[in-house]
Amino acid sequence: MQIIRKIEKMQRIADNLRRQNKIIGFVPTMGYLHKGHLNLVKLAKEKSDIVVMSIYVNPTQFGPNEDFSKYPRNFERDEKLAKEKGVDIIFYPRSMYKNNLTFVNVEKITEILCGASRPIHFRGVTTIVTKLFNIVKPHYAVFGQKDAQQAAVIQKLINDLDFDIKLILSPIIREDDGLAVSSRNVNLTKENRRNAPILYKSLCYIKEQIDQGKTDLIQLIKQARKMIDDIPNAKIDYYSAVSYPELKSVSKLEQKTLIALAVNFGSVRLIDNMIIENYWQLTKTNKNEQGKLENRN
Amino acid sequence: MQIIRKIEKMQRIADNLRRQNKIIGFVPTMGYLHKGHLNLVKLAKEKSDIVVMSIYVNPTQFGPNEDFSKYPRNFERDEKLAKEKGVDIIFYPRSMYKNNLTFVNVEKITEILCGASRPIHFRGVTTIVTKLFNIVKPHYAVFGQKDAQQAAVIQKLINDLDFDIKLILSPIIREDDGLAVSSRNVNLTKENRRNAPILYKSLCYIKEQIDQGKTDLIQLIKQARKMIDDIPNAKIDYYSAVSYPELKSVSKLEQKTLIALAVNFGSVRLIDNMIIENYWQLTKTNKNEQGKLENRN
Repeated sequence: MQIIRKIEKMQRIADNLRRQNKIIGFVPTMGYLHKGHLNLVKLAKEKSDIVVMSIYVNPTQFGPNEDFSKYPRNFERDEKLAKEKGVDIIFYPRSMYKNNLTFVNVEKITEILCGASRPIHFRGVTTIVTKLFNIVKPHYAVFGQKDAQQAAVIQKLINDLDFDIKLILSPIIREDDGLAVSSRNVNLTKENRRNAPILYKSLCYIKEQIDQGKTDLIQLIKQARKMIDDIPNAKIDYYSAVSYPELKSVSKLEQKTLIALAVNFGSVRLIDNMIIENYWQLTKTNKNEQGKLENRN
Repeated sequence: MQIIRKIEKMQRIADNLRRQNKIIGFVPTMGYLHKGHLNLVKLAKEKSDIVVMSIYVNPTQFGPNEDFSKYPRNFERDEKLAKEKGVDIIFYPRSMYKNNLTFVNVEKITEILCGASRPIHFRGVTTIVTKLFNIVKPHYAVFGQKDAQQAAVIQKLINDLDFDIKLILSPIIREDDGLAVSSRNVNLTKENRRNAPILYKSLCYIKEQIDQGKTDLIQLIKQARKMIDDIPNAKIDYYSAVSYPELKSVSKLEQKTLIALAVNFGSVRLIDNMIIENYWQLTKTNKNEQGKLENRN
């Protein structure tokens, strides 16, 4: 496994690989690797000859009062894990901005959900991802569905700026108790860590209700919020249902829908989500049920 | 010469060329080719194996009251000229934006000179150039110095977003009477066309004064403005001196300096400029002169 620190060197390696007809899979990370990242690597390996992972805690995606300095870092551990999982190259730049004046911004879909309380966050994400795409020159880029809004934003970035890159989405990886794995989980207090699975539990509750034919998302989210409000220290930032990947607000289950939430436990912000894909099956089932009822009457 | 209309096809061709180790030179244009464009092609050919020219009148760089619809177009003529000059591929897309939400913006240096009176212009330029770079995948991109601010903005875009592309600048090409060639010149009335060389004449006046040791740019520009104010129908938008390529306002000739102006003749906006490179020679000469004077006293 190679560790590359210079932008130009990474570009020369990428050019050489492409000249040799090698497929480059890219896993961008901010390090402090966990099971979620390692699943991104697994998916990248399935599609590519060479897997490049970047490790860079990107300052432009953190707001002035956010946890940039507290974001956990441990390169030695990351290096070991990446090597074990078969990463070929770690791109580990020292710094990525030199008198920067240029930003890439996806409008509208970045102004809701996480974007509402983190106004410069997605601009920072799309700017660094553009830079990394230009440096690593991948055929595939793998992102996690845990950041579902980010995934929708990156897909829009790729479409709108004509990046010749295919996006692969990895499902959410969870701890045994249901908490979505995240580098930030280590910053939770013991008590908050014990309570944090409530995000997933509340999503599971919504899923159960949907499976039973409920489609009133406003009502379901109201009930789910209540579950979290009962937990000490848990403060909901948002709990929303939006069409996916367009991210338009929806109140009834009528199309592919993202149900997403962000909850602050003290200074630690956790997110989780669920994508309801098979709404049409549900609709069909509901219709059948309704038909049966009507026949019975 | 190939004419490519589809983004994906252009990307596949670019990939194949790069796999064959061919150097791609790129000349982005809005068509209605003139001697200036053809010089860009000449410079591209010197550096590359394959020259790709794009022809696309980009709507996002025109303001609501600007001349997008009146911008001259003539593809057949362009095709013939490009072929004669040895262009290998014309990328001639039908449309380039589909429900676009994404913009690339270089801040600060786009807010002055042309950017002051055309607030969305450079955002449109950097967005389309980013898209074209991702489609054509060139090693070299050739731009004209006539749009000196644009050239500085594109260089900053390349640096800040880590595009692996080298920028080549072509000098300003002029008609026999000194008017900088521009696709917009055909839209001038006969009288305004006759008067339009005043832009260049005023720059030549400044250059002469500088060659004679003058360094007070504010004073020189004041005199140059006067020359244009005397011309019927000519309305100065700006006449400025800035450091190059940083584009910071300067009042004295102490570094590499861009002297640039924009003048409206009716609805036709003309720009011209001059870069003073050898300020240090001038300074040295001035110092020597001063030394001689001091010795004499």
